[in-house]
Amino acid sequence: MKMKVKDIGISSGGPFISIINEKDAIDLDLYALDRIRIKKGKKEIITVVDISTHVKRLSRGHIGLFEEPFQALKLKNNDSVDISIEKKPESVDYIRKKLDNKELSKDEINQIIKDLITNKLTEIELTYFISACYINGLSDNETYYLTKSIVENGKKLKLNKKIVADKHCIGGTLNNRTTLIIVPIVAAAGILIPKTSSRSITSPAGTADTFEALAKVEFPIKKIYSIVKKTNGCIVWTGSYYDKNLAGADDKLIKLRHPLSLDPEGMLLASILAKKAAVNATHILIDIPLGKFTKINNKKQALHLKRKFQKLGKKLKMKIKVIITDGSQPIGNGIGPNLEARDVLYILRRDKKTPKDLEEKSLYMASLILGMAGIKNPLEKAKFILESGLAYKKMKEIIKSQLGNPNISPNRLKLGKYRYNFKAHKNGIIKEISNELLSKIARTAGSPIDKEAGIYLNFHVKDKVKKGDTMFTIYSKNPKKLQFAKIFLKANNLIKIK
Amino acid sequence: MKMKVKDIGISSGGPFISIINEKDAIDLDLYALDRIRIKKGKKEIITVVDISTHVKRLSRGHIGLFEEPFQALKLKNNDSVDISIEKKPESVDYIRKKLDNKELSKDEINQIIKDLITNKLTEIELTYFISACYINGLSDNETYYLTKSIVENGKKLKLNKKIVADKHCIGGTLNNRTTLIIVPIVAAAGILIPKTSSRSITSPAGTADTFEALAKVEFPIKKIYSIVKKTNGCIVWTGSYYDKNLAGADDKLIKLRHPLSLDPEGMLLASILAKKAAVNATHILIDIPLGKFTKINNKKQALHLKRKFQKLGKKLKMKIKVIITDGSQPIGNGIGPNLEARDVLYILRRDKKTPKDLEEKSLYMASLILGMAGIKNPLEKAKFILESGLAYKKMKEIIKSQLGNPNISPNRLKLGKYRYNFKAHKNGIIKEISNELLSKIARTAGSPIDKEAGIYLNFHVKDKVKKGDTMFTIYSKNPKKLQFAKIFLKANNLIKIK
Repeated sequence: MKMKVKDIGISSGGPFISIINEKDAIDLDLYALDRIRIKKGKKEIITVVDISTHVKRLSRGHIGLFEEPFQALKLKNNDSVDISIEKKPESVDYIRKKLDNKELSKDEINQIIKDLITNKLTEIELTYFISACYINGLSDNETYYLTKSIVENGKKLKLNKKIVADKHCIGGTLNNRTTLIIVPIVAAAGILIPKTSSRSITSPAGTADTFEALAKVEFPIKKIYSIVKKTNGCIVWTGSYYDKNLAGADDKLIKLRHPLSLDPEGMLLASILAKKAAVNATHILIDIPLGKFTKINNKKQALHLKRKFQKLGKKLKMKIKVIITDGSQPIGNGIGPNLEARDVLYILRRDKKTPKDLEEKSLYMASLILGMAGIKNPLEKAKFILESGLAYKKMKEIIKSQLGNPNISPNRLKLGKYRYNFKAHKNGIIKEISNELLSKIARTAGSPIDKEAGIYLNFHVKDKVKKGDTMFTIYSKNPKKLQFAKIFLKANNLIKIK
Repeated sequence: MKMKVKDIGISSGGPFISIINEKDAIDLDLYALDRIRIKKGKKEIITVVDISTHVKRLSRGHIGLFEEPFQALKLKNNDSVDISIEKKPESVDYIRKKLDNKELSKDEINQIIKDLITNKLTEIELTYFISACYINGLSDNETYYLTKSIVENGKKLKLNKKIVADKHCIGGTLNNRTTLIIVPIVAAAGILIPKTSSRSITSPAGTADTFEALAKVEFPIKKIYSIVKKTNGCIVWTGSYYDKNLAGADDKLIKLRHPLSLDPEGMLLASILAKKAAVNATHILIDIPLGKFTKINNKKQALHLKRKFQKLGKKLKMKIKVIITDGSQPIGNGIGPNLEARDVLYILRRDKKTPKDLEEKSLYMASLILGMAGIKNPLEKAKFILESGLAYKKMKEIIKSQLGNPNISPNRLKLGKYRYNFKAHKNGIIKEISNELLSKIARTAGSPIDKEAGIYLNFHVKDKVKKGDTMFTIYSKNPKKLQFAKIFLKANNLIKIK
């Protein structure tokens, strides 16, 4: 059947989408989310159909096309195209199979991921896949195949080295910016550590947000390759938009998991290790912080996840070490991009303001990675690299390669000029600090979008305080936001003193 | 935050959708499928955000709006609006709860359906709901609450009568057009039977497609009400686009179930009985045809479903009778809209071409309904109504009320001029006719879009045939389609003779 095209003028961000008028849909026996093949000359594509009761200037016999199909066929408005009804891809049957709680084969999982990355599956179909994985679970084999498929159907950073280190933290603890200390130490020890990090989703800052206070974090893969070749390390953002990424299939699944905050275990494992495999990582340290408000909040679950990581790592021929750490309170003093970046620079520059807890945890983790890589006396080595200034020197190289100012002093990282000091209401010992409430206050004050916003803690759990001591300071660029943060503060008891 | 609006010029068919540029999304800390509140003066709405890497003429600081939100706020291009981030509705938590296999309360289910019908839930979120219902199942109580919620949140046909009859068939058998015989018989007996029917999804014709050969089937609810008041019956299409329907929530769920052909049992039950409750039906006959190719294809499953219908009917205070019938072969001779409408008219007009199997089944079912309604000797009564011509007279009234030609003769219903006679290759007795293959051939020939296309059967199972007898004729308006049907025919053995 012939139809005339109309350029809708918007992009779907990937999938080929077309829109036809309700009456044409009835004539063509088409249902919303069905597929049609559109042919122009020798070129042809398959699009998913949406049905509209009203498209301006889209009369019957016209088909509206989003940017992607419009460009793929090199069309002009009112060009005539051939339309025919197209079957669903086979991967839809595999999704159905998983909904029916049957185990998928390697080829079936690979076909789903392949069709996902080439935009052959709709978001609705992929949501069914996620639901099925969430409710019915993925077997160890399915998790392995999923990881492999995500890597094989995505972009890769090809570093042909025997040892490529990496680390990952399952979130939930504030600051905890160990990556920015570990990467320069490990890189300075001569070991590759091409770190891809995320931006904040629900926290006041992600590693990428914090490092962005010091340098750029978004680069094409070629450029990342040359940064790593030059410095042994990098700290880059792999993006949240799936079409330009390492292990990009994962980002598309994450987008659809987001509305219900679903973390199907097998997908969580595949998501983390696929990103590592995509940068050729061979030796990986995984940190599972455990606390009331962390993602994993009980020991049993943490141990279960640890075993799953080890199993999957074995199949992927990766050396994996998993540590379960204390996630009950923030690690470091600053919360928010610039405040956290200050903490990192204090440590690297051996400043007296160094947050000891963050320094200690970072050294411990760096030493584990060095040990995995075969370096003897790894803790001494890590300490030496940090204390001698080699780690700071390495960090400056990385900042410079990532187009930042390597000589920036921590005190030049601006803090919001609207401030509020929260004082202790009595003498005593701090029993509990709520990561969750601090996070909300920092976000209310503007983190992570306002890089100058956040919280600086003067005390941690077990510290003694006197009535009137400033327990922490809130910073914001915006007086209204500071006001909201204060209102929120009053309504909540976020630090317990006994 | 202030943004300027741009009219995207297309309609989503319901949900309020907005699009912002990728960079604005990062600044606003917004993720695809998040919600934002848009305020213009005193009016405000909540939209779901999609994120675009490219919208023509949509620069940063601009928000693209689909028709629905654009009109709801009475905007003009470049109007300035206030944007703020909005939390997810609570119903998202209930969907999550169901994914975690916890039973939902009446209020929780009602909130999901309410948010569905007012477009507060995205298609992704609703897909999670369907998945959860499919995999985890719905309890009897949940199914009841779902049915009630669908009815209460939709349009209704308010017929205040003690007895309102209805019938439903769980599909899969070809022709089987009993509705078009039962409705006039029951209506002629003085009992209301406001029948809403579907169009074909995968078959060569639905009841609505067939009746459309004789009259119109799409009417606003007010008009349906007056047709039923006048004639006691109607045969109307309730539409497949959810925003204008009786029990409309169900249609939106069906749209999302379609891509994976999912029939979660509880939703199937709720879907069928909500449509009945929406027309105030009190006495309902349900036909479950059983055969190799029917939707329900084993006895155990049919009996299970029967019990579920009876349980749910009791809760809904409906009288429900469920029959399990032979669905192994087509019932009637014609397949395709005009051919099936001819069969119906042959029966009503007492023509010698009457398909006896369809007549017999329709009389049986009509008598069951009359019996449920308290009429004595119901089979005699049904026979009398049919044989005396009262049923035909009633049908003519209904056709006239639905703007068709009441005096049309069956032979005036056109059949495709391209025809092919399929002949028996040997003498023998017919052992099996494949509903599934006949359906594919009829659809290949053009049914149901081409009303003149289809198949006319001269024989049924157990009939004797002689070599060279024309077993059936294929009709099509289009010679190419007939050709395709013939090719398909050769490749398949659809009638077995022994």
